[in-house]
Amino acid sequence: MKLHRVKSGSRLDLGACDPDDTGPYKKNDEDKAAAKAETRQLIRKLSRLQERLYANKKCSLLIVLQGMDTSGKDGTIRSVMSGVNPQGCKVVSFKTPSSKELAHDFLWRVHQEVPAKGYIGIFNRSHYEDVLITRVHGEVSEREVKRRFTQIQEFENLLIDNGTTILKFFLHISKDEQKERLEARIRNPEKRWKWESGDIEERKFWNDYMKAFEDVMSATSTDHAPWYIVPANRKWYRNLAVADRVVRAMEDLKIGTPPSASDVDWDRLKIS
Amino acid sequence: MKLHRVKSGSRLDLGACDPDDTGPYKKNDEDKAAAKAETRQLIRKLSRLQERLYANKKCSLLIVLQGMDTSGKDGTIRSVMSGVNPQGCKVVSFKTPSSKELAHDFLWRVHQEVPAKGYIGIFNRSHYEDVLITRVHGEVSEREVKRRFTQIQEFENLLIDNGTTILKFFLHISKDEQKERLEARIRNPEKRWKWESGDIEERKFWNDYMKAFEDVMSATSTDHAPWYIVPANRKWYRNLAVADRVVRAMEDLKIGTPPSASDVDWDRLKIS
Repeated sequence: MKLHRVKSGSRLDLGACDPDDTGPYKKNDEDKAAAKAETRQLIRKLSRLQERLYANKKCSLLIVLQGMDTSGKDGTIRSVMSGVNPQGCKVVSFKTPSSKELAHDFLWRVHQEVPAKGYIGIFNRSHYEDVLITRVHGEVSEREVKRRFTQIQEFENLLIDNGTTILKFFLHISKDEQKERLEARIRNPEKRWKWESGDIEERKFWNDYMKAFEDVMSATSTDHAPWYIVPANRKWYRNLAVADRVVRAMEDLKIGTPPSASDVDWDRLKIS
Repeated sequence: MKLHRVKSGSRLDLGACDPDDTGPYKKNDEDKAAAKAETRQLIRKLSRLQERLYANKKCSLLIVLQGMDTSGKDGTIRSVMSGVNPQGCKVVSFKTPSSKELAHDFLWRVHQEVPAKGYIGIFNRSHYEDVLITRVHGEVSEREVKRRFTQIQEFENLLIDNGTTILKFFLHISKDEQKERLEARIRNPEKRWKWESGDIEERKFWNDYMKAFEDVMSATSTDHAPWYIVPANRKWYRNLAVADRVVRAMEDLKIGTPPSASDVDWDRLKIS
């Protein structure tokens, strides 16, 4: 499985990325079942890797999830991360900033929520909203947007230097798929709680958002904090793709047996 | 299954609670397997109930875990709460207070971490340490301890009035069982990271701790924030007992279909 990784410094064209893509899997029931079984395996692996990460407390993992409304940020977290010990996993959903948060720089509230060593942190939306929604609605100048691109890179470098691995996922759905998902929310009373009044309004800016996403991902995908484009029209493939990428990143950390106190003579220690 | 619930205002005798108890289950492989299967069922139920709690955002659940070293606080969280969507579940481990925290009242840092509406919060150790470890080591006066008992009740009442259900579990192991578990930590290099230099020292105060636990649970078990004594020598029974109690508490909340925006005419809403 190969996710499209946005190349540092090159121009991203989202139109060339198929949101309906399912990699090596066909879109039939058999392949879908196989993909789901594979995802379950990966989740079990992830659970074991996370225990090691937690015990070692040497480094951390930050997963950033971005995407349009209904692209499946909540669903990805539920599907991929249920199974991980919540003691070592912190999910943060960034909503409209409070007046206290707005009185600080845009990274202030984000910095407070980054994962400590040993932890997996998941950002459901993130500091990237501050160069997306604000830009689409003309609330920040182009000069300020450019400055923020640099500030984001410097901020992420600080985290990386402290042992954080950063993975950024753009959940890529088509405009038609969003229509279907919004309609499902309307039809199903059990799903209506997710409806927000701005959903229809924001949809009108679809093309502006695509352009803004292309800009921000082109500018902030680096070797150490890359952006991945996740084809997300098919939930089962989206889950598999994210789980696979996360597991491989954690395997790359090569976390060994956790260290133990060096001043203890283990062979002589007696409990009475 | 019936967990011993500490009666408000009556004197608790931990010596009369068997840490080896397994309720209606026998201590053979067959019953153990049945208990584990039952626990898995409960965890699936818990996962569904939590989704509802999260969607409704009307109330919250706070689970407090206390117990001696090695009593299984971490293990209970891993076993019972892996499976819950981490987006709606926050685990907080309270360690030795920082100097900033010590400059405030003992509930200050705790209050910041209570679960918001829609969330399950789990305290791995809690404000109860401030009437346990400090008391055993004579760091607080008896007068101050009494005052804190009252302050804890008033603090918990505040949370309850805001829609929080509070469940407090004492994971009850025997002194012999602790010996075995500490020895296992010493023997197994994979487990040594959990070893802390204070472990042996604290064990010497076992009887003082039992007395302190009896006092604090007798004083702070109320109808709305009860203490449960969980027989915890057998991990499989401990997990089952906690999962069962949590699921029943969440079922008692009788959470229905989540509310949706009242100003929307759902039948006429069209997505273009």
